[in-house]
This record gives sequence, C-alpha cells and structure tokens, in this order.
Amino acid sequence: MSSSTSDKSISSIGRTGLLKNIAGFSTFRSEKVEQGIGDDAAVLKSDETRYGLISSETFVEGVEFDLTFMPFHQIGAKVITAAVSDIYAMNGQPHAVLINLGVPNRITTDMIDNLYKGIGMACSDYGCQLSGGDLTGSHNPLIISVSVYGDVLHEKIVYNRGAQTGDAVCVTGDLGSAIAGLKVLLREKRHWEESEDPVMQPDLSEWDYVVKRQLVPVAKKEIIETFHQKEIKPTAMIDVSQGLINDLRRIASNSEKGAYIYQAALPIDLQTRSVADEMKEDVDKYALFGGEDFELLFTLPENQVKNLTDFSKDFTVIGRITDDSDRIEMQTAEGDVIVFDDPG
Amino acid sequence: MSSSTSDKSISSIGRTGLLKNIAGFSTFRSEKVEQGIGDDAAVLKSDETRYGLISSETFVEGVEFDLTFMPFHQIGAKVITAAVSDIYAMNGQPHAVLINLGVPNRITTDMIDNLYKGIGMACSDYGCQLSGGDLTGSHNPLIISVSVYGDVLHEKIVYNRGAQTGDAVCVTGDLGSAIAGLKVLLREKRHWEESEDPVMQPDLSEWDYVVKRQLVPVAKKEIIETFHQKEIKPTAMIDVSQGLINDLRRIASNSEKGAYIYQAALPIDLQTRSVADEMKEDVDKYALFGGEDFELLFTLPENQVKNLTDFSKDFTVIGRITDDSDRIEMQTAEGDVIVFDDPG
Repeated sequence: MSSSTSDKSISSIGRTGLLKNIAGFSTFRSEKVEQGIGDDAAVLKSDETRYGLISSETFVEGVEFDLTFMPFHQIGAKVITAAVSDIYAMNGQPHAVLINLGVPNRITTDMIDNLYKGIGMACSDYGCQLSGGDLTGSHNPLIISVSVYGDVLHEKIVYNRGAQTGDAVCVTGDLGSAIAGLKVLLREKRHWEESEDPVMQPDLSEWDYVVKRQLVPVAKKEIIETFHQKEIKPTAMIDVSQGLINDLRRIASNSEKGAYIYQAALPIDLQTRSVADEMKEDVDKYALFGGEDFELLFTLPENQVKNLTDFSKDFTVIGRITDDSDRIEMQTAEGDVIVFDDPG
Repeated sequence: MSSSTSDKSISSIGRTGLLKNIAGFSTFRSEKVEQGIGDDAAVLKSDETRYGLISSETFVEGVEFDLTFMPFHQIGAKVITAAVSDIYAMNGQPHAVLINLGVPNRITTDMIDNLYKGIGMACSDYGCQLSGGDLTGSHNPLIISVSVYGDVLHEKIVYNRGAQTGDAVCVTGDLGSAIAGLKVLLREKRHWEESEDPVMQPDLSEWDYVVKRQLVPVAKKEIIETFHQKEIKPTAMIDVSQGLINDLRRIASNSEKGAYIYQAALPIDLQTRSVADEMKEDVDKYALFGGEDFELLFTLPENQVKNLTDFSKDFTVIGRITDDSDRIEMQTAEGDVIVFDDPG
C-alpha cells in the first residue's frame, strides 16, 4: 500500500469532502447543462420555457434497506419517493424513471415482481412513467439504482441557493419520525433474531406512524402544487434526506447566509417523542440529524408566509435566515444558543 | 419458501423474461414520454424539434468489472463509454452524466480520485458534463451507476425497430475482441494467483489490441457524426453490448423482420483469432455472442450503403434483413445455414 498522504480512507474525508474532490475532475462544460453538480438535481436546457431535471440515487441492501423487515413492494415505493423528492425540491414535476437492478441469485422472480409492483404504484402516484432500466447480477447485495427525469418552467425553478437574510426557514410535515421508525424496526429485528420462535410476528401497531414513515415515506408533491397554483415561490429549497441540520447547512452555505432556528419550533410527532423516551434518547437529535424524512426545507420571504398559511397547513416556520455566513444556530427551549459546527 | 410456480429464480426465466414481466407493472403513461421501456434509451418530449434521451447502467465489482486487473481510471472511462453508447445508438448526442457510487471501506480516496479522472477524461472526449450524482456505502462490492442525458432532432432519431426487408445489416469496427481481451486478462489473473511471485507483471504486449478493447473500449461517435453530416439515416440501430446475435435479434424482433447474415463477413481482428486459437475455442462464438464490443449495429437501405462507404471505412455489411419474422440465420463459410434459436 502507498503511504501517500492522499491515500486516505473515504470515512476520513467524509462524503462532503469526497464530493468536493470529484467536482475538480470534471472540467468539460456542455452548453446543454444549465447547472451541474451541487443541487438536488442537475438542470438541463430543455427549451425556451422549461428546464429538464435529472437526478439519480443508488440503494444498497444492508446500507439503505434491510430485507429482513422491509417488504419488497415497500422498498420499490420508497426508492421512487426518494428519487422524485429531488425533482420536487427543484419545484419541478417528475415524468420518467429508469430502474437498474443488481440481483443476487437468492432473489426470486416473485420478489422482483413485488418490488416492481411497488415501483409501479408509486410511479402512478407521482405521475411518472417507468421508462427503462437494466438488470445485472450481483454476488451479494441487492442493488437498486433509480434515475428520474422531470421538468420545471424557467421562472419556477428553485435552487438550494438564493435564501435572503430575514427569510423564514420553513419545513413541511414533521421531522425525525423516519429515524424513530427505523429504531423501532431494528429493535424488533434484534428481538426476532434472539427469539426461539421463527414465526413470531412483532406487534408494531403502537408505532404505526413512525414505522410507516420509515417504510413508506411520501414525497411532498401537494405543497409543490400549492406553490404553482398560488404563485408562491421559495427563495431556496432542498429535501430533508441527510437530516435537517445537514440540509439547512447546504441552503445556508450555497446562499452565503446563516440560519437561526428555534428548538421549540421543530415539528416533532408525539409518537417520535415516545420512541425517543423508550430508547432513552434525545428526540431533538432525531429531528436535527435523522435522515430520510423526505420533507421539503425551504426559505420564504416574510410577506409570502402568511399567503402560504392560507393554503397549506402542512408546514412550520422553524427560524430565520441570517447574515452570518455558514453559521447554523439554534435557540434552545431554555434560551441558550447552540452553534452547529460544520463537520467539513 | 413458497412452492408457487411463479416463485422462480431469476436465472430460470432469464433477463429477457424478467424485463418482459417488469413492463407489465408499469401502467402509468406520462405525456412527456415519447417512448419508454424497450430501446437503448428512453425518449422524452423535450421541445418542438428535439427529443431528450435518458439511459442508465449499473456496474457491480466482480460482475461487470474486476479490480485485480482493471485500473480505476480505465473503469471510470469504460462506464462512461457504456453509457454514452446508448445515446449514440439512438443517433443522439450525449450532454450530461450523473454518477452514483456505492463504496466499501477498503476503497481509498486515491482510488476514487483515479476513477473520477477516467470519468472526467471520457466525459470530455464525448462532450458530456459530469453533472451530479451521489455517494453511499457498500458492505462489499464497489458499485458504479451511470445515468446519461442526451438529445436528438425529431427527424434524426433511430429506434431499434424500423428495419425493412432487404436492408443491409451493418456493424462498425470488429466483433469479439472485447471478450478475447477478457479471456487473456482472466488467464493472466489465474497465472498471477498461482504464482509465488507477488510482483510478477504479465507481458500483455502481444495482446495489446484485444486487452485495450476490453479495458478501454470506445463508443462510436464518429459514425454518428458522419450520419448527421452526410444525411444518412439507418432504419434501425442498437449498440452491441449483449453480443451480435442477441442485439440483432432485438432489431429483428422489434421490426417484425428476420435477418440473414454471412459467417465469412463477420469482422474479426487477427488478434481475436489468435486468442481463440490459443484457447482452443471457436472465434465465431466470440464474434456472435461476446458482449461489450460497443460497436453499433444498424440497418441501412441498399441505396445508402454506397453513400456511407464513400465517407466511412469503419463498417462492414454482414447480411440482409428478411421477411422471416424473428428468424436469425447465418450462412456458414461451407454454405450451410444455421438458425439461431431465441433463448426466450
């Protein structure tokens, strides 16, 4: 092995560091690309009035999903939700998806059929056509790659930059419920593995909401429809896939602004609180750092907040954009101020 | 395990059977999609004059590539070649690619940097902008997913259907060299593994052409440029990724035609023949069934063949399209006729 200082493990420089490196190797610029790396989707020059949007994600068994407690049709629906969420986060509409599978031998055609049933139903829900893809082998994990194509009118596009000082920081739905659901499912999996009864079915009815948020999250197409119908336009937007603080930092950093949020304002479901209590964990950590909520985080000029309130109940103002570039702060319920350091 | 007759392994119904199943689960049709599943790329309604084209492929370590003899920068270049080849096969131009990686811990940042150097160089060669992607973990194999976006003028698009009886069956470059290169590399890998000398470097100079065809294949952008400049338009086209007979069957089947090819006309490089001789194998099997050549297979009306010959030396007429629906036949050098059965 080389002992060069650049010969580091991925974990030592982190995902963000690696993505920064990568951008440096890509020098060719196409006149057909309006914006490349750095947002939820790449932005393509489609025609005089619309931009094309493309995004893709890869899901690896044992990393992004666990076949021991995730039924195939729910995995299918979830990968589509994750993909279209990136198009909604640009204020766009998804139209087409491609699916590539890497399939190990232990997977049967029934399992693949169920996966595709979930994919097909979610595609219908979001108005997308399953338009292609490919199939290859895999020695071990099941691998699912989703590519999505959508579009957006030029004047409607919202990037993850553009937030202005004083803008309200808004988030749809509630936060931390997906990670709460995962914690419940992982605990049940451990119980099941330790149990001597192979057909034991755990009773998850007490945790139905959080489990559903983990297994079958829903992308927020309704609020995008409201934005379009009511001519409300966020100044910046991103989907909450990496956790609130990570995603808020991307908006702040790309807008060269900071953000000041209120702990007391974080929208957290009661069931999420109950899970954290049972696990003896801090529910705010679920809300601040738990990923996969697929809520939309956006910034809105103050005069548009009232306007949106008239048409949607599905969002909460959690803070304000500040002039303090890259500084993410939270005022706690006790009145203290926490600064979130950039992990780099 | 269920004993239901539909609970089959993937290998028992095959890739084609599974892809047929999948199409049945996708019922939603988007008005933005001109053509979905079934060709090298999905076709999107972009504007009044152009179609958008999207395609994606996933490459799994140990299945599509082998890190023991493939350098990272060559893997990077090859995945881009494979992706843009699908856009050229629609007679289109690629413009943007997205890369998703699933990265196990043993992979260092240097390796990823080299992968991206190869990706960046290939993107420049093909006029594509690296426009995004994502990074996730993987417990075992390195996983690379590539999505590509391109476009094509409405009147220039070529599908893998549309071949007419009497059309010449043409193929660019030569066939079977990629599989010949792979056989040489796998043999050297076995020697290396059996050897007691860990730094032994095999001398591959005798096999430079076929090894290069396996490691750094090139997509055929020049002939697409010739088609556009000289206003020559194939009636059907596909890239040779699954092997000549498989890909010719797709053109024939989708065109509701058959094909009659001549064994003596198959373009096979001398080095490919030498490899087959050394391995005591039939070189025609390499040419007929070896994949990954990334040549373009197309059908051309007779009156355009002469025209193309004036501008390109990089293609061979290997046969004719016939009226015998789905029937793929080959006349051997001895004058016998072989019929290739559809594996289903």
